[in-house]
Amino acid sequence: MAAAAGDELRKQGGGYEVVRYTVPGIKDLAAGARILFDRGCDLVIALGMVGRQTVDKDCALAADIGLQAVQAAVGKHIIGVMVHEEEAPDDVKLAWLFDRRTREHAVNAYDLLFRPEAIRARAGTGQREGYADAGPVRVERT
Amino acid sequence: MAAAAGDELRKQGGGYEVVRYTVPGIKDLAAGARILFDRGCDLVIALGMVGRQTVDKDCALAADIGLQAVQAAVGKHIIGVMVHEEEAPDDVKLAWLFDRRTREHAVNAYDLLFRPEAIRARAGTGQREGYADAGPVRVERT
Amino acid sequence: MAAAAGDELRKQGGGYEVVRYTVPGIKDLAAGARILFDRGCDLVIALGMVGRQTVDKDCALAADIGLQAVQAAVGKHIIGVMVHEEEAPDDVKLAWLFDRRTREHAVNAYDLLFRPEAIRARAGTGQREGYADAGPVRVERT
Amino acid sequence: MAAAAGDELRKQGGGYEVVRYTVPGIKDLAAGARILFDRGCDLVIALGMVGRQTVDKDCALAADIGLQAVQAAVGKHIIGVMVHEEEAPDDVKLAWLFDRRTREHAVNAYDLLFRPEAIRARAGTGQREGYADAGPVRVERT
Amino acid sequence: MAAAAGDELRKQGGGYEVVRYTVPGIKDLAAGARILFDRGCDLVIALGMVGRQTVDKDCALAADIGLQAVQAAVGKHIIGVMVHEEEAPDDVKLAWLFDRRTREHAVNAYDLLFRPEAIRARAGTGQREGYADAGPVRVERT
Repeated sequence: MAAAAGDELRKQGGGYEVVRYTVPGIKDLAAGARILFDRGCDLVIALGMVGRQTVDKDCALAADIGLQAVQAAVGKHIIGVMVHEEEAPDDVKLAWLFDRRTREHAVNAYDLLFRPEAIRARAGTGQREGYADAGPVRVERT
Repeated sequence: MAAAAGDELRKQGGGYEVVRYTVPGIKDLAAGARILFDRGCDLVIALGMVGRQTVDKDCALAADIGLQAVQAAVGKHIIGVMVHEEEAPDDVKLAWLFDRRTREHAVNAYDLLFRPEAIRARAGTGQREGYADAGPVRVERT
Repeated sequence: MAAAAGDELRKQGGGYEVVRYTVPGIKDLAAGARILFDRGCDLVIALGMVGRQTVDKDCALAADIGLQAVQAAVGKHIIGVMVHEEEAPDDVKLAWLFDRRTREHAVNAYDLLFRPEAIRARAGTGQREGYADAGPVRVERT
Repeated sequence: MAAAAGDELRKQGGGYEVVRYTVPGIKDLAAGARILFDRGCDLVIALGMVGRQTVDKDCALAADIGLQAVQAAVGKHIIGVMVHEEEAPDDVKLAWLFDRRTREHAVNAYDLLFRPEAIRARAGTGQREGYADAGPVRVERT
Repeated sequence: MAAAAGDELRKQGGGYEVVRYTVPGIKDLAAGARILFDRGCDLVIALGMVGRQTVDKDCALAADIGLQAVQAAVGKHIIGVMVHEEEAPDDVKLAWLFDRRTREHAVNAYDLLFRPEAIRARAGTGQREGYADAGPVRVERT
């Protein structure tokens, strides 16, 4: 999915450099993000897949807490793109979902850095990255 | 809902400046809050909507832990306004609830900065932001 | 309950000053505690009420994690006094419970600062703040 | 149980000083541990008892996260000795279990500081502090 | 399993030194990892076994959060190798699983330091360390 993220970023525009860093699993994302920030990156897109079992959900929670800890310490965004296996009935649909969600989050990442007004315009339209939108209640922060 | 927060703040009084910063989702709130504190803000109002599913609740817990981490590190308040989809039967009621809760929390935010005695006066009356009050047991801290 | 804490502290003795700081809800306690420590306080008593629903329990967990983060960073005690709505059948009993637990924790707070030997004497008698003691197994730390 | 920890430490050998610090409950352990580290301690043994109810388990999780945060920040060990009420049918058995587990963890604490090779020798024999060993799969870290 | 990790690392290549540090249980891993980083290590492989009961799962979650906190603070990888008792029907199969998973993670650890392109090549093939691969959806991070 890293390729999809890079592809979508290129469609949005330029003015940035992509540094790709692959980790073995989702619990390694926080360290990887911290390493990228220490190397000077301004934003990290973290892509991960979460299994169906209870132990996988605990892993995902720990991974998310780690990503939050890095963001709280560094003050830069980590855009997490997590797909759960049970979100789709088969691998083809899962790959499609991961691709779509990755692209939508890549746009979010681009907009956070270059087009903040675009995020504000989408806020409150209830968009769910990867599936249909949910409705009109706004999700934003003043 | 950011508009409702700004509107309610204006009703309370002046002496402050509002910086609005929109993020893609609730897991991005902690980084956004840290960024705003790093820019000199004294208090952050974080507005977010939480879905119905277990994964959404885990997201909300991770987001809340991130917001706690930022507050623990910075020593400034983040007033979290979270609305859960299942709190209302339909989108109209949900929007009403989000608006009302946002306004009540905006008053809290204003009072933390400018009218601490007003918060103390409300403490212990069991107010639930967004719905009717629960009762007379006091919720405060000495 | 802040009044009960102050009243009970006065009964124990002097040599301290009470700074009262009221926050809107339990998720705001960690920031409030950090602010008080930054102002020079040596110990914080955090009073809060937790609702019956799952979302309230998640709030309480996030609040507790925030309080732990502040204590871990600052190295000073936050004595948490949390009462859960379902601990009592009605508001009168709940208010009684909150009052009693607050007073017992106020004694603990006083003893941590001025009478550590008193805490040690109570340790291991299985005291539950706010209800009857549970038994003789000791709860302490060397 | 603090007495049991001190007694067991003495049986292992000398070369250290014990500083005893008692706190009101398990959620106060992290602050107490940080205070002891700030006073120059090299290792903390944290003794606590966890009740049967869901709220007690949430308390224990928050306490454990606090202890982890202190260890992560300070880089010194906190040996947690937690006994859950439901681990034994009555108080006599519970006291026995707490005593035994405390002594086994006291040996671990001593060995971490003075006999690391002894811990390595026990690793992978599946020892459960306080009850019979579970089996031969090794639990260690390289 | 530490022996298996060392053995597998040697098979991959040289250019590093292994420092082995054994701790009593999984909740001690975060402190141990921090100690190793403070001694100059560049990466830690953390090996642990998780029991079947709810209390064991809470322990594992706390341990994982501690490991995340260390990684977030230090910006270096801790490769966690956790095996849950219920993952295998008996001790022989469990030992086999732990050995296999340890070796696969040792390869990951080596590759993070010396062959990042190898991790990228494996990303998205859905590998589950210790059991058969799950499928073709990619798990990586850009």
